[in-house]
Amino acid sequence: MRYENREIDELRNVEILPGYIKHPEGSVLISFGDTKVICSASVEDRVPPFMRGKGKGWVTAEYAMLPRATEQRNIRESSKGKITGRTMEIQRLIGRALRSVVDLDKIGERTVWIDCDVIQADGGTRTASITGAFVAMGLAFEKLIKEGKVKSNPLKGYLAAISVGVDEKQQAMLDLDYVEDSQANVDMNVVMTSDGELVEVQGTGEEATFSRKQLNEMLDLAEKGIEELFLMQKNVLGAFGDSIASKRDRKADGE
Amino acid sequence: MRYENREIDELRNVEILPGYIKHPEGSVLISFGDTKVICSASVEDRVPPFMRGKGKGWVTAEYAMLPRATEQRNIRESSKGKITGRTMEIQRLIGRALRSVVDLDKIGERTVWIDCDVIQADGGTRTASITGAFVAMGLAFEKLIKEGKVKSNPLKGYLAAISVGVDEKQQAMLDLDYVEDSQANVDMNVVMTSDGELVEVQGTGEEATFSRKQLNEMLDLAEKGIEELFLMQKNVLGAFGDSIASKRDRKADGE
Amino acid sequence: MRYENREIDELRNVEILPGYIKHPEGSVLISFGDTKVICSASVEDRVPPFMRGKGKGWVTAEYAMLPRATEQRNIRESSKGKITGRTMEIQRLIGRALRSVVDLDKIGERTVWIDCDVIQADGGTRTASITGAFVAMGLAFEKLIKEGKVKSNPLKGYLAAISVGVDEKQQAMLDLDYVEDSQANVDMNVVMTSDGELVEVQGTGEEATFSRKQLNEMLDLAEKGIEELFLMQKNVLGAFGDSIASKRDRKADGE
Amino acid sequence: MRYENREIDELRNVEILPGYIKHPEGSVLISFGDTKVICSASVEDRVPPFMRGKGKGWVTAEYAMLPRATEQRNIRESSKGKITGRTMEIQRLIGRALRSVVDLDKIGERTVWIDCDVIQADGGTRTASITGAFVAMGLAFEKLIKEGKVKSNPLKGYLAAISVGVDEKQQAMLDLDYVEDSQANVDMNVVMTSDGELVEVQGTGEEATFSRKQLNEMLDLAEKGIEELFLMQKNVLGAFGDSIASKRDRKADGE
Amino acid sequence: MRYENREIDELRNVEILPGYIKHPEGSVLISFGDTKVICSASVEDRVPPFMRGKGKGWVTAEYAMLPRATEQRNIRESSKGKITGRTMEIQRLIGRALRSVVDLDKIGERTVWIDCDVIQADGGTRTASITGAFVAMGLAFEKLIKEGKVKSNPLKGYLAAISVGVDEKQQAMLDLDYVEDSQANVDMNVVMTSDGELVEVQGTGEEATFSRKQLNEMLDLAEKGIEELFLMQKNVLGAFGDSIASKRDRKADGE
Amino acid sequence: MRYENREIDELRNVEILPGYIKHPEGSVLISFGDTKVICSASVEDRVPPFMRGKGKGWVTAEYAMLPRATEQRNIRESSKGKITGRTMEIQRLIGRALRSVVDLDKIGERTVWIDCDVIQADGGTRTASITGAFVAMGLAFEKLIKEGKVKSNPLKGYLAAISVGVDEKQQAMLDLDYVEDSQANVDMNVVMTSDGELVEVQGTGEEATFSRKQLNEMLDLAEKGIEELFLMQKNVLGAFGDSIASKRDRKADGE
Repeated sequence: MRYENREIDELRNVEILPGYIKHPEGSVLISFGDTKVICSASVEDRVPPFMRGKGKGWVTAEYAMLPRATEQRNIRESSKGKITGRTMEIQRLIGRALRSVVDLDKIGERTVWIDCDVIQADGGTRTASITGAFVAMGLAFEKLIKEGKVKSNPLKGYLAAISVGVDEKQQAMLDLDYVEDSQANVDMNVVMTSDGELVEVQGTGEEATFSRKQLNEMLDLAEKGIEELFLMQKNVLGAFGDSIASKRDRKADGE
Repeated sequence: MRYENREIDELRNVEILPGYIKHPEGSVLISFGDTKVICSASVEDRVPPFMRGKGKGWVTAEYAMLPRATEQRNIRESSKGKITGRTMEIQRLIGRALRSVVDLDKIGERTVWIDCDVIQADGGTRTASITGAFVAMGLAFEKLIKEGKVKSNPLKGYLAAISVGVDEKQQAMLDLDYVEDSQANVDMNVVMTSDGELVEVQGTGEEATFSRKQLNEMLDLAEKGIEELFLMQKNVLGAFGDSIASKRDRKADGE
Repeated sequence: MRYENREIDELRNVEILPGYIKHPEGSVLISFGDTKVICSASVEDRVPPFMRGKGKGWVTAEYAMLPRATEQRNIRESSKGKITGRTMEIQRLIGRALRSVVDLDKIGERTVWIDCDVIQADGGTRTASITGAFVAMGLAFEKLIKEGKVKSNPLKGYLAAISVGVDEKQQAMLDLDYVEDSQANVDMNVVMTSDGELVEVQGTGEEATFSRKQLNEMLDLAEKGIEELFLMQKNVLGAFGDSIASKRDRKADGE
Repeated sequence: MRYENREIDELRNVEILPGYIKHPEGSVLISFGDTKVICSASVEDRVPPFMRGKGKGWVTAEYAMLPRATEQRNIRESSKGKITGRTMEIQRLIGRALRSVVDLDKIGERTVWIDCDVIQADGGTRTASITGAFVAMGLAFEKLIKEGKVKSNPLKGYLAAISVGVDEKQQAMLDLDYVEDSQANVDMNVVMTSDGELVEVQGTGEEATFSRKQLNEMLDLAEKGIEELFLMQKNVLGAFGDSIASKRDRKADGE
Repeated sequence: MRYENREIDELRNVEILPGYIKHPEGSVLISFGDTKVICSASVEDRVPPFMRGKGKGWVTAEYAMLPRATEQRNIRESSKGKITGRTMEIQRLIGRALRSVVDLDKIGERTVWIDCDVIQADGGTRTASITGAFVAMGLAFEKLIKEGKVKSNPLKGYLAAISVGVDEKQQAMLDLDYVEDSQANVDMNVVMTSDGELVEVQGTGEEATFSRKQLNEMLDLAEKGIEELFLMQKNVLGAFGDSIASKRDRKADGE
Repeated sequence: MRYENREIDELRNVEILPGYIKHPEGSVLISFGDTKVICSASVEDRVPPFMRGKGKGWVTAEYAMLPRATEQRNIRESSKGKITGRTMEIQRLIGRALRSVVDLDKIGERTVWIDCDVIQADGGTRTASITGAFVAMGLAFEKLIKEGKVKSNPLKGYLAAISVGVDEKQQAMLDLDYVEDSQANVDMNVVMTSDGELVEVQGTGEEATFSRKQLNEMLDLAEKGIEELFLMQKNVLGAFGDSIASKRDRKADGE
């Protein structure tokens, strides 16, 4: 049995608080247990140089942690003058994952800047960031549609992410907190869409390995957790969320 | 009459929420109206090179804004690879102001890292940061004393800060929000201690000037506002706050 | 049928040339078709600060491409003054993968620096790097053992990596070249040990998704390719390679 | 009595040597005692991006010290690869102060670059820089008018700056040298115009505080010193200086 | 007698392998003994800002060493975030030398990027780089002419470089390897054209000096070595090499 | 005939003003015509890491230009955040040249920091820097000897530098000013000692070449100019200069 009687396949307490900060086109405060991330979506009316003139938009993400989001204070990346490899990996992952469910043609030559700022860290910050950023982005698209800047919902499906792992006793488990994560043999992040498809699978055994069987156990747990996250996202997005085209709908549109 | 019927000498709604994030030795979320800053105090058991071997401690501060704390998204300083002059000025000011009320001999060879992260900006972020950071630092000292690491309260007084300004009609006013600040002729930040003494006075007339008389009007407003901030700080610090030595007490100690 | 009549489950022509440059303790030139990487292993008699005093060693990797390794010339990272996110991701991956098969206790307080410099790129540079770096590291360990600096072989198994993907017709395939990689819907890198265990699985669908079934097809192809790579590595490492402890052996040792 | 019999309200020996270097549109070597600063004003026929298309000009300043301008050699900021917070604060202050007396509409889309390079430092480098830079800028404007590039004098008044402080015996004093400055309880920089108005007041008590009464004593001293600096500036600027519009004149012009 | 029975005026074994990497317009692997450098020439259809609109081209060079090209591993310049002074000096030298034999008018508004990447270093890397880069550039020009992008051969002569030095016994010698170079009193690099003219002479006595007589002895050796290098370059460039205009030819053209 | 009736073999007006700034152990303002450089020598009681524990000292140099030392204002290297290749080359040259005449064993574990700051540039800044820096360093050594920190004069000879060139009419000339330098075909810097030996010869023909005969003409001119510079240096260094050991003296000492 895990800390606080959590089951092997049980998510921590998840909360998604929309409109947490006032300036961004969309924003949420998302919590996975004690992990808390402010996700915001900012819309800029131009695209980066490599995308210009294609009539399409772009989605990009940045990720950071407050210096004391963690047990030990970290030096600010702005003070160091450079971004760590870990931060780069995470923000590239977030951007790539979000782009997989956005029809970039529908947003015109606009960039959606996703900012995920971790104010308290207790494991799973990248998966909380993706899950929260999807909602912040959804809120921004809702606003763009209301303002008439975007014609139809660019979202091709819901998107959420969760971490899974294998502990020292070879037990697979869902949504690891910091203590579990630092003791795990294997750590895997899974990103999926509401069509039941995988977007990203990143499994790593630092100084350890894992079998195909364990990979499948972890994927089963991830699928279960992500389904629950979709319900919470739908709850926040409400009516706008209903207009997110399912794969079947899209196929019917001849896409 | 100002926006939302605020009087010339009236503070915005101020709130100080202690323990806002769990890892730091002390933390608060402070709001001055729509300006919201997470202030944390982290204690490290060593001092920077220039302070080593003196048996004294050090207090230093860092300041940042989330990219979308503002109306327009700002590029992260970590992405730019360098800190702007504005940020440097503010974090030097916060550190200097806090050190003026700390007896560095009493904290031993420790560094108190103050982090002020603005999650939403609407004018007065540097004064909210100083006012909140003082409380976060107080909470950290309270913890150090409870743990027996520090013997007696290192605080020599309360410390708070407020902005004042002169508008285009030559009217002095207290605690400017973003709109007022951007229209003001003169902008001044005042930092004071509970002994009624000044710690910092920074008055600036960009493309404008001000008279000695206006300087005095602004200082009168600042004193009034800062007195009100002291009451809110005392409310949060409670019994620990009562042990902050007043100047009279310190004199009786032969200091 | 693929370019040059390659089968779906067929590797490109792979060559591993040992001792390619003379100064490093171990080095190879590895080719996966037109992808050519110089892998070197340099041994330093100290460890990074976070590992000091533990009596253990460390393995770390750096990766770079010559500016004109690619179709278009890339700006040097040294001229830009910073390392791209892509490079960081790759060098973190290489280091992590190699550490999974090294018994760090056996190498003492030494760092093995792995340098993977791509002199010609045609897809799969990161998997060629891992596969070649394993051999370069093996050659360096062989030298350390001969010199009496290391007592027994620190390698816990062979390690190799290959890329797999799914093309636009939903066909899974092994060892993608640059053209195939840029047209693929899904790109996955798999790192495995000679015990048949997974070390890293990184599957990504940029603007696309993949099913659990496709994931398994790709893993099957990867296993086949990696088994072939192990044979080539064994061929180069010769007698020294035979002393790489199999899992069964290690278990017999009570590990 | 101060070092070298200087009175409490007495400036050090001040000299302003015009045309000190030949290339800039305007330049001076200014000395406040042993503090020596080369101030130059360079005119560029374009403005920074945020000012383009407004038909107005811009004034910006940079400040630096030679490595051995000080008692101990300082590492060059170019070698460190970044500018210190102190330098940023000072150059922002110089630029802001100078802009307060320039009618930016009158200079057209031009940038005046002010460079203040301290070749010898003995306290008060920022106030010497402002006072000298005003003259260098005046000489540049005189040249632009002679060349017909600017129609009428853009200067709205004279501008000078001085430091004041309070020593350990609570004595206020004018124009602190390095030794006095490092022993002072309070350090304040005051910038004023020839209309008797304040432009900047920056008073700081590092590990000390000051009263409203002391603030006023310091301001009285600063006013006296700055009046004397105006006479020296006028002496150098000669006939051109006479055309600097006083406030009264400007009011008569209906400004 | 030198190591491996080399004579005072004898080059090491020199090889020039054309087409070593496939993407660049021209490339070679050049070896001077154990010194091995990949030289590539990349053609870009635009020039740097300072050359735009002149109808002329530009040639520029970059130089780097693999971290373990040397006896001790060097930290990558990309990891340090800056280029060392030594690298800057060398790449400026290579670019300048190559430009001396190119008629920039003939290549149109194009930039030739020369990349010299040392994969193994044993003395003389900069002279091997210049000698190899000339051939890589020649191959690129041959390609541009074949493609009709350039009308006539822009090369005004052959160009090669060699190092010479004076050892501790005051003996001048040709083409120093690393051991000789590190023991030499004087080190000189000489760049010449096939017209027998000097392009660069850089002689340096670190903690030593040299006489005019020694300078002349070194130049005599350099001339001899460079003549031999021209023959090898001609051998690689073949028929295209024959079209390199000699000075006499150019004079006949009225140049 | 040259500008201002200067002969082909005539130096510009040279002045060396000792003690120009007060803090450094030695300093001069040196002028070669309108080129003016502040040279200072600062003594630090430790050596860089690579020299520690050898009982020897080190001499290193830094070079910079004020932004408006030149006709067009240059961006500060501190603002750019990096040092240009030109600056690196020059400061490496100055340091290397000065070390050639210093007996590093005699100065103990100390570093002499040479700072050459060009306040006005009109050609020949690097040769003026070397010539002036030698005197500043001599003044610093004189001080160290007076203070008993150094026992005997560490200088092994005088050192000076001059530029020579060949103009478009193939005429060699001495000490080029900016206009001459920018029109010259060949530019060469020569550094010599008072023993008549060469320390550095750096001849460059950008987009031009030069013959052995022209090289010798330039060296003859350089020797003549440098002899004249030695007389001016001796004049400033006075009695201390007389103790600079000549080669013959050193040989008599059995060196």
